[in-house]
Amino acid sequence: MKVWFTGTGAGRPNRHRNVTGAALQLPDPHCAWWLFDAGEATQHQLMKLPLKLSKLEKIFITHLHGDHLYGLPGLLSTRSFDGGVSRLDMYGPAGLRSFIETVFRLTGTALDYELVIHELDDNAMDIPVFANDSFKVEAKPLVHRVPSYGYRVTESDAPGRLLTDKLKKLGLEAGPLYGKLKRGESVTLADGRVVTPASVTDGIIPGRIVTVLGDTSPCANAMLLARGADLVVHEATFAAGMEAKAHEFGHSTTIEAATAARDAGAKQLVMTHFSGRYSNEELSLLEREARTVFPNSYAALDLGYFEIERKGNGAASASGGCDE
Amino acid sequence: MKVWFTGTGAGRPNRHRNVTGAALQLPDPHCAWWLFDAGEATQHQLMKLPLKLSKLEKIFITHLHGDHLYGLPGLLSTRSFDGGVSRLDMYGPAGLRSFIETVFRLTGTALDYELVIHELDDNAMDIPVFANDSFKVEAKPLVHRVPSYGYRVTESDAPGRLLTDKLKKLGLEAGPLYGKLKRGESVTLADGRVVTPASVTDGIIPGRIVTVLGDTSPCANAMLLARGADLVVHEATFAAGMEAKAHEFGHSTTIEAATAARDAGAKQLVMTHFSGRYSNEELSLLEREARTVFPNSYAALDLGYFEIERKGNGAASASGGCDE
Repeated sequence: MKVWFTGTGAGRPNRHRNVTGAALQLPDPHCAWWLFDAGEATQHQLMKLPLKLSKLEKIFITHLHGDHLYGLPGLLSTRSFDGGVSRLDMYGPAGLRSFIETVFRLTGTALDYELVIHELDDNAMDIPVFANDSFKVEAKPLVHRVPSYGYRVTESDAPGRLLTDKLKKLGLEAGPLYGKLKRGESVTLADGRVVTPASVTDGIIPGRIVTVLGDTSPCANAMLLARGADLVVHEATFAAGMEAKAHEFGHSTTIEAATAARDAGAKQLVMTHFSGRYSNEELSLLEREARTVFPNSYAALDLGYFEIERKGNGAASASGGCDE
Repeated sequence: MKVWFTGTGAGRPNRHRNVTGAALQLPDPHCAWWLFDAGEATQHQLMKLPLKLSKLEKIFITHLHGDHLYGLPGLLSTRSFDGGVSRLDMYGPAGLRSFIETVFRLTGTALDYELVIHELDDNAMDIPVFANDSFKVEAKPLVHRVPSYGYRVTESDAPGRLLTDKLKKLGLEAGPLYGKLKRGESVTLADGRVVTPASVTDGIIPGRIVTVLGDTSPCANAMLLARGADLVVHEATFAAGMEAKAHEFGHSTTIEAATAARDAGAKQLVMTHFSGRYSNEELSLLEREARTVFPNSYAALDLGYFEIERKGNGAASASGGCDE
C-alpha cells in the first residue's frame, strides 16, 4: 500500500507544489486506488504517476474549498474518456452533489460510468461510510472554516503464515488454493471438507490503518481518527510559532500536527498542505520542527509516495505488480 | 501584440498539450492582457508565461464545455490571492454566470475584486460586446454541439508617422507631447492652440484585427469574424479527410480551417484544439495540409506565441516592455 501525493500546497498552485490531492494505492490483488481531494490539475499530476484513472474506485473529498475540489470535474470526465466504465463512489460534505450536478448540467457532461455521490451525515458518524471484506472507511468532522472531514481507512486483518505441514497432511499442494487461504478465503476440498484460513495459519496479520485528514485546527476528532494509525496525513500549513494565524484560518502548525500524531500513538506522520510562503528547501526545516515532538515525521513532496508495509511475515500482499 | 497559447488540446489534457486557452497580450502602454477560454490548469500554464494575473482585464469564454472552462474558478481565485484588485470583465454564453455563482457559493469563495459577467445575447450580435478608445470586440455564434462563439478584436486606428518639420514650426520639441500625439491624443500649446494628431502626421496606421473562434464546424459567421484579420485562431481538431467525424462533433479539419482563413482574406491562420490522437511531431503534417490551401498556416504549441506587428512605420506601439 502506498500513499502518493498529487499536490501538497495550500490555496493555490505554485512552481513547486500543486493544490491538494493524495492517492491511496491498494495492495494486490486489487491494483485499485482511491483519491483524497482533487485540487485543480490533479489529473495532470496523475499522468506522471503509475495510477490509471480507470482503476480509480473511490474519491473522498475532505471539504468544499476550491484548492481541494476544482480538479474534480475534469478528472471525472477524463476517466470516462480514458475508458473508465466501472462504478465510482464519491464521498464528501453536503453540497458535493450540487457542485457536480450543476457543473455537469451546465457543461453538458455525461459519463460512461456510474457515479454515486454519498454526502456525509454528521449524525451518522459512528457508522463507517464504507465497508467491505477488505476495508472499512470511517469519517469524522474536523475544525475548519467550512465543514471539513478526516477519513480513517482500516484494512481487514489477514491470515498469518500458512502452515504447510498441515496443508500437506490435508492433501493440499502449493497453488491457487494457497492463494485463496492467504487472502482469508476458505477452501473446499474434493471430499467436501472445508478448510478455513484460521485452521492452517499461525494467527492473523493485523490490517493497516491510514488516516487522511482535511484542513483542520487541532481537535479531538483528528486524534480519534489517527489513533494507532500506521500513517497519518495531517495538514501543516504553517511553521511552529504561527499557531494564532493557523487557528484564525482553521489550520495547524507543524508542532500541532506532530503532537496529534504522537498523542494518537500513530506510527508515521506525513505533513502536507504547506503555505506558499515555504519553498521546497524550507520543508526540511518544517520536518525538523515536527521531529522535535514526533521523530517519525515527514513533509510530503508532490509526486512522491510513502509505503505502508504489512506487518509480520508471510504478508498477504504480493509485490508491486500494480505499478506497471 | 502577441497571442500566447496556454493549451492547444481537445477534450482532455495529455503529456504534450493542455486543454484550451489563449491569451492576447495588448501593446504598450496597456501591458494588460485578455484570456480566451480557460481549460483546467490554465493558471498553471500561465505561471510559465510573462503574463501576470493582476494585469488580466478580460476573459472571453467561447462555450461551456469543460475543456474550455474548468480552469476558470481556480484562475479567478488565484488572481485575488495574487493581489489582483482591478475590475475583471468576463464574456460568454448564457449559463456562465450560473456556473461561477454556483461554484463560488458552494466553495465559499470571495474575490477581492469586482467580477462582472456579461452573458452573450444572440439577438444583440450587431453591437460590439465591448468597445473603448483602443479596442472593439465583436462576437458571433458558430456551429457546435452547444452554443459556441467566436470573437473578433479590432484595434483602433492610430495616427501615422509624426511630421517633425511641422511640429518644429509649431514650436514642439521631441518629448512627452510627441508621445501623446503618437497615441492619437491632441495636445494644447501654451498659447491655447490645439494640435490634433491628424494635422501633424502622414495619415493613419490601421488597427490590428485578431479573431479567436470557439469550437465550430465550417460556417458563415466564422468567415465574417475572420474577414481581413491579421491573425485568426481557428480550431482544427482533425486532419484532412476526417470531415464527417469532425462535423458529427461540431468540429473542423485542417483543410476547413485553412479554407476559412483564405476565403476570409485573413493574413495568418493559427490552428489549435488538436485531437489527442496527434503527437506534437504530427502537427507539422497538419500544418502541411493547411498550407496546401492557405500558405500562411501554423499549428499552435502550448506556451508558444505569435506576434502581430503593427502595420507601417512609426507604429504607436513601443517595444516589448510588457514582457518584463
